[in-house]
Amino acid sequence: MTTTSAGASPRADTAARERGLAALRQRFGDRYVDSTALREQHANQVTWLANQPPDAVIYLETTEEVAEAVRICADGGLPVIAFGAGTSLEGQVNAPHGGVSFDFDRMKRIVAVHQEDLSCTVEAGVTHRQLNTHLRDLGLFFAVDPGADATVGGMAATRASGTNAVRYGTMKDNVLSLTAVLADGTVIRTGSRATKSAAGYDLTRLMIGSEGTLGVITELVLKLHGIPEVIAGGVVQFDTVAAACQTTMEAMQTGLPMARIELLDALMVRGVNAYSKLDLEEKPTLFVEFHGSKAAVDEQSALFGEICAFNGGGAFAWSASTEERNRLWRARHDANWAGRELRPGTEGASTDVCVPISRLADIVTATQDDIRETGLIAPIVGHVGDGNFHVGLLVDMDNQQEVEAARGFVSRLNRRAIEMDGTCTGEHGVGQGKIAYLRAEHGAALDVMKAVKATLDPAGIMNPGKIFGP
Amino acid sequence: MTTTSAGASPRADTAARERGLAALRQRFGDRYVDSTALREQHANQVTWLANQPPDAVIYLETTEEVAEAVRICADGGLPVIAFGAGTSLEGQVNAPHGGVSFDFDRMKRIVAVHQEDLSCTVEAGVTHRQLNTHLRDLGLFFAVDPGADATVGGMAATRASGTNAVRYGTMKDNVLSLTAVLADGTVIRTGSRATKSAAGYDLTRLMIGSEGTLGVITELVLKLHGIPEVIAGGVVQFDTVAAACQTTMEAMQTGLPMARIELLDALMVRGVNAYSKLDLEEKPTLFVEFHGSKAAVDEQSALFGEICAFNGGGAFAWSASTEERNRLWRARHDANWAGRELRPGTEGASTDVCVPISRLADIVTATQDDIRETGLIAPIVGHVGDGNFHVGLLVDMDNQQEVEAARGFVSRLNRRAIEMDGTCTGEHGVGQGKIAYLRAEHGAALDVMKAVKATLDPAGIMNPGKIFGP
Repeated sequence: MTTTSAGASPRADTAARERGLAALRQRFGDRYVDSTALREQHANQVTWLANQPPDAVIYLETTEEVAEAVRICADGGLPVIAFGAGTSLEGQVNAPHGGVSFDFDRMKRIVAVHQEDLSCTVEAGVTHRQLNTHLRDLGLFFAVDPGADATVGGMAATRASGTNAVRYGTMKDNVLSLTAVLADGTVIRTGSRATKSAAGYDLTRLMIGSEGTLGVITELVLKLHGIPEVIAGGVVQFDTVAAACQTTMEAMQTGLPMARIELLDALMVRGVNAYSKLDLEEKPTLFVEFHGSKAAVDEQSALFGEICAFNGGGAFAWSASTEERNRLWRARHDANWAGRELRPGTEGASTDVCVPISRLADIVTATQDDIRETGLIAPIVGHVGDGNFHVGLLVDMDNQQEVEAARGFVSRLNRRAIEMDGTCTGEHGVGQGKIAYLRAEHGAALDVMKAVKATLDPAGIMNPGKIFGP
Repeated sequence: MTTTSAGASPRADTAARERGLAALRQRFGDRYVDSTALREQHANQVTWLANQPPDAVIYLETTEEVAEAVRICADGGLPVIAFGAGTSLEGQVNAPHGGVSFDFDRMKRIVAVHQEDLSCTVEAGVTHRQLNTHLRDLGLFFAVDPGADATVGGMAATRASGTNAVRYGTMKDNVLSLTAVLADGTVIRTGSRATKSAAGYDLTRLMIGSEGTLGVITELVLKLHGIPEVIAGGVVQFDTVAAACQTTMEAMQTGLPMARIELLDALMVRGVNAYSKLDLEEKPTLFVEFHGSKAAVDEQSALFGEICAFNGGGAFAWSASTEERNRLWRARHDANWAGRELRPGTEGASTDVCVPISRLADIVTATQDDIRETGLIAPIVGHVGDGNFHVGLLVDMDNQQEVEAARGFVSRLNRRAIEMDGTCTGEHGVGQGKIAYLRAEHGAALDVMKAVKATLDPAGIMNPGKIFGP
């Protein structure tokens, strides 16, 4: 493959852009907003990456409106940046080349729940907590649960996962099909409601993880699961992260159907103790959960306890009490914020790598050594059943030396993961933060991605500056 | 998207092709074969579709050799058709435009088994039975099991599944990454050994199901599972297919982790009784299997028995005896051949559709009515947990009227599935047999597929005449 200029910034002139913005303002009236405050709210605000606001924000209500708005942007050479909840961690919602933020706050309709098929059809602006609140009374749930209350459209765009992925898979595995608007305003539906198909190229999976660079996702058919009869979980603590990782690997190898298995290192435990009023020992800790019948959960918990003991873990204290469990998992989901409280006033940078589970103990240990040697403050949390973990860097952005040290650390971490035949991102996506590592990870395959991008978005208006280049 | 000439037959002149064939003969010596018998063996032989032999067959031994051969074919404008076990059912291995069959019989190496990671690296010519024989002593298995002993490369190319898909997923879910040779000879690896990644476009899933039209798959990293502690299964019979389908749907809704749930209609039961020496009543029958611990399997079997009874099913006779179980599932896997014995001397056409499970009873019932009204002999088997089923048409190819009637039936079946928001193929792929239905199923999305095809294979040498057009 020859390299193509994917992600090139639109070449349209300023006058054309102005005409495009005027046309959007005329078409969408008070649903077109360009106040500085709102524009800044629609760019990155959650990490140490810069805040790069769009020229304007529009609030869309239907797929047809999205298509119409994309056509106007195409005419004006205006970048199109889809915006869900704004919780992406690698700058996916930034507008480095300006353009228009497509806000999905008015596309939160749960179109249909297909109970007999264990699926539902929803608009892209629906959040996973909104959906699960709606589903609870039906005895169903949607399994993908990133820490923030992200929209399902944004989750699909970044191929998000979360704590349940070890059992239920990532967005890749939980979207049956989707509706998307392409760079020329064409609306496509990538599949049917059948649970499997061999009818041509898998455009559903091509769109999932494309971060808005190929099209704007407007509607999805999602896979659902029945709420388990019993949900039980608990915590177990270890003297070393290596022992916790070994325990995780052995639990996976025995085929224990872990619903969740999450690692917090000692520093992260200190953070959640303070933030979420827990009283855990400050040691490497696994949060685990089992789903199933009473008998199955009892059996699984007992077996897991044996594996923990074998690896020098403490007592595995577990319970099926909803209240206790929710308290624990809320704390886990708030870890990102809890971590930041460890060093108020700093910027957080939650980085994300994933390796084959056999290398997990090696990379976590090497990463902790690197953190120590670099003199950074950086708690670790991990979806360790997937070999995926996050380092929550807490950086004093006014200290240039520290910022540089942190950048060096992130670079070493990503290259370490790639050298172990892993990936520079397990679930946060590339956005702006991981662009530098894709050549090392993908080699010539990166040129294939660029060729596909150049074909479906020749003018480079779909979320430019993400995945492929600045 | 504008329509592009994907799948166009290569434009190179005859002289260039002759030079290409001569170059291949010179390079590969006695691994280049062009006898009529062998060429015909390398085209479709398993269905009523025509046998369209390639100009030559070459036996390749490494990814580098495949790349070299593709470059020679590209220079000569020679179509490239990958050939595994030749078991595809929609003419995927045919050479309607001539060209070269790339035989993978010498690429059967199991490169590595990564026990701790529950994955393995294998060459594309490895078959699923070969792999599982190799894995058995390690207590691991590869879950995707089409009826024939297909190669994993071919299974990936057609997005195959099989009886285990309801629990373990299809090839889409069981390939971590793959190595492929593109139309210009570039070798790419589409991912790492990490179990998940958000690092750019999902080229693994783009290649899976592309049927050799984007590149030739040479090596794969496959997901493995631990062999369950207990495997138990059995059969249950019903008076109507509707009752069997309703039972299936309810079992799925309750979240019963069925490992396999297969429907055979009364005619198919007659076929397997005769072919596999079983003595089942000639009634709609479900073959089911449960995987797990002793306690889990007991519990699941009991619950399933209750669902059967509630829906008027007969007694659910199940056993954990390996011998009995193997006899049963061998019979199920031989159903395609057993069906043909119902009418010796005819050609078989195993067609394949998939619908949302809530529509399964409707479509199977409507299809049986259609079979009766059309006067065809066509047993039905189904991976009903997925909403997927096959109709095994037995056609007297010398009776033109019957052939036309069968074609009409297949067309109605596919359109019926698409109208129910299903797909014209759940697992056999498009090949030549399903091309006519893709526009109805995908609409404008088909043009996106064509655009991707035209970008990665501008000369149209990769398996032309498949998926997109004759």
